[in-house]
Amino acid sequence: MPVQSARGTRDFLPAAMHARNHVLGRVREVFAAFGFDPLETPAFERIETLTGKYGDEGEKLIFKILERGEGGREGKADLGLRYDLTVPLARVMAQNQGLPLPFKRYQMQPVWRADRPQKGRFREFVQCDADIVGSASPLADAECLAVADAALAGLGFSDFTIHVNHRALLSALVAHAGGSEREGEVLVALDKLDKIGWDGVAEELARRGIPDAPFRALLADPANLDAFRAVAPGPVAELELVLSHARSLGATRIAFDATLARGLGYYTGPVFEARLGDGGVGSVAGGGRYDGLIGMFSGKQVPAVGVSLGIERLLVVMEERGTLPKETTRTRAFVVCFDDDLVVDALALSRDLRTKGINTEFWLGEPGNIGKQLKYAAARGIPFAVIRGPDEIAAGTVKVKDLRSGAQRTLPRDNFHGALDA
Amino acid sequence: MPVQSARGTRDFLPAAMHARNHVLGRVREVFAAFGFDPLETPAFERIETLTGKYGDEGEKLIFKILERGEGGREGKADLGLRYDLTVPLARVMAQNQGLPLPFKRYQMQPVWRADRPQKGRFREFVQCDADIVGSASPLADAECLAVADAALAGLGFSDFTIHVNHRALLSALVAHAGGSEREGEVLVALDKLDKIGWDGVAEELARRGIPDAPFRALLADPANLDAFRAVAPGPVAELELVLSHARSLGATRIAFDATLARGLGYYTGPVFEARLGDGGVGSVAGGGRYDGLIGMFSGKQVPAVGVSLGIERLLVVMEERGTLPKETTRTRAFVVCFDDDLVVDALALSRDLRTKGINTEFWLGEPGNIGKQLKYAAARGIPFAVIRGPDEIAAGTVKVKDLRSGAQRTLPRDNFHGALDA
Repeated sequence: MPVQSARGTRDFLPAAMHARNHVLGRVREVFAAFGFDPLETPAFERIETLTGKYGDEGEKLIFKILERGEGGREGKADLGLRYDLTVPLARVMAQNQGLPLPFKRYQMQPVWRADRPQKGRFREFVQCDADIVGSASPLADAECLAVADAALAGLGFSDFTIHVNHRALLSALVAHAGGSEREGEVLVALDKLDKIGWDGVAEELARRGIPDAPFRALLADPANLDAFRAVAPGPVAELELVLSHARSLGATRIAFDATLARGLGYYTGPVFEARLGDGGVGSVAGGGRYDGLIGMFSGKQVPAVGVSLGIERLLVVMEERGTLPKETTRTRAFVVCFDDDLVVDALALSRDLRTKGINTEFWLGEPGNIGKQLKYAAARGIPFAVIRGPDEIAAGTVKVKDLRSGAQRTLPRDNFHGALDA
Repeated sequence: MPVQSARGTRDFLPAAMHARNHVLGRVREVFAAFGFDPLETPAFERIETLTGKYGDEGEKLIFKILERGEGGREGKADLGLRYDLTVPLARVMAQNQGLPLPFKRYQMQPVWRADRPQKGRFREFVQCDADIVGSASPLADAECLAVADAALAGLGFSDFTIHVNHRALLSALVAHAGGSEREGEVLVALDKLDKIGWDGVAEELARRGIPDAPFRALLADPANLDAFRAVAPGPVAELELVLSHARSLGATRIAFDATLARGLGYYTGPVFEARLGDGGVGSVAGGGRYDGLIGMFSGKQVPAVGVSLGIERLLVVMEERGTLPKETTRTRAFVVCFDDDLVVDALALSRDLRTKGINTEFWLGEPGNIGKQLKYAAARGIPFAVIRGPDEIAAGTVKVKDLRSGAQRTLPRDNFHGALDA
């Protein structure tokens, strides 16, 4: 059986790396523009840090590590691979209580889940979170909306909407259905609104014996925040402020959506989720306020709000839409090795190009056979070849060949670097 | 017991992250300048990929992972965390046999070793490798020397020497000592040359019954490559070519060193190791030719040569020497929130700054109490505060305060951004 990578994992060869680096770099710039700074935490945590944090289903997906090889600590699995970036953030906040607050950090690191691998679902994938810890102000929620908007726009997306709701409005709906034990049923019905329309949802509710009249009043137009003013005046006012501040910060593709039913258990305030125009891929970013989580280790109540970009999903969409950079290499110039006698000249030429800031590779195989060398450089995706044989040396020139078009120019040895910019 | 990170691991808070990103970014640029492209592989591999590759001592240090939670596959540890970047590279080459050769990749990723944690030794640390797979040419060895030289220089080091030797010359020495079963004793004695001098080494050899005369001839001047010409003419000529080509590529701090005894088992040709002038920290980069390793999974002989930068050690030295960037944040401007009525103006100001490419944070706490806000911004390390109260709004101005010097200027609202560049 030939060697294989572990199932559910991927290698990223240079072309994929360049695309990923481009996308992650863009997002990093947007996070930095909004005053977020980077944080990284270890791949594994003590198992007790992770246990009890992700529910029964999540718990099964934590990869457990034997503390010290097979024999150590009687083979006890004392460590676990990072499952998300939120629990590590909570731990960091508990261990660094002197940090100036609000603490605005972004974190882009892989997480691991022992999921059954399937198309598009991997056991190792990058999460990309920006969170504000220590501010209860609606300004912080607004900033997370603005950062999500700017990040998606920065990646070239314009056909998206960030749907915004408030946990208290969902609670108000659930209260109408007879309290929290009916929560699941209500959310399942709401979730179908897109597909089955309002009449369908009313029917689903009626079938479950939940009166649909109050829902009808509140949800007749899911974009109408005003409908909730009577039942939840405080949250409505808060959400109005968040939306208006987010617009002041430049977020234009945000809209209230009373049907957005995002993780009721986890969030405590405004919640949001970005979807692309064609809807097909589901959520591409999401977040909200979660004032109960960050204090889990310190025992203090620490307000927090954050946004998580679905970076792996965005990469897939960008790939499909052809908006990822196509470069297979960052090397600009390939220096041909004409023959054994001219190796030293080719090395000096390479050094000169590098000194001028041009990423340069030279031929490391047998000298000669220029066709083979050019074929290699073209296969690598290097745009230009630089050739200097005896004729060029005698004339004080170089030949520059554009490997994409085949066009070739002879230029002075001391002044040809500009030709490699195109 | 308060929550803790797993022992032997570190969190990187923003200041540490900025320093690390700076250093890794510099190295990445040098690798790219030499035509290396990035590769990333998963954190874990199938356990059989890792087993038998690192010797008995290494094997114990592999962190083993239970395949699917505690219960899965009868709790069998089917996976292991990446121990280095070479075995994953060998696997990638076996799985991607259509890659154009030579394949020049760099890889900067953490590896994990279940070592006993101690000062300066961690269980998670970044390795930083550049390798050339598929070229047997001395040009490839020369390029690895040049890349090591350029990377160290790019990080601001000038007081280093890259010691170069050849496995065949070490073998010649070992042959003098009575064959490979004396290898360990010879290398242990040679390794002390720095400390105990030539007479000391001769005494050590004599004590072990190894005749010291041939050693004396070969090692009287460890920088004299010529001394080996009679016993190993081929390798001497090869090393001369490697050193001369490396110099053509700009590597100036390289020197032959017959006492360099680097991993005899692993390497098959030229080997090298960089040490700083003060010597104290040991090797800060190393590498060499290892033609037997990359083919371990494909069963083919694949020539390869590489360099590994001791990036964690270099970071420690740069920290001690004060040559790491000191920034705690990349945020340039902090926008003060004067009072509730002026929130919208402050948001517009923030948006405007960000649009102009200036990383900007605004106050997310209670408006007012400007002293508290400035104290926060200074604690974050943000260089400038931008203040716009009723007076400034009436006058169409902003106040820009340099939080490092305390200097303050009043400037036109539409033309103050240049003041934030200093």
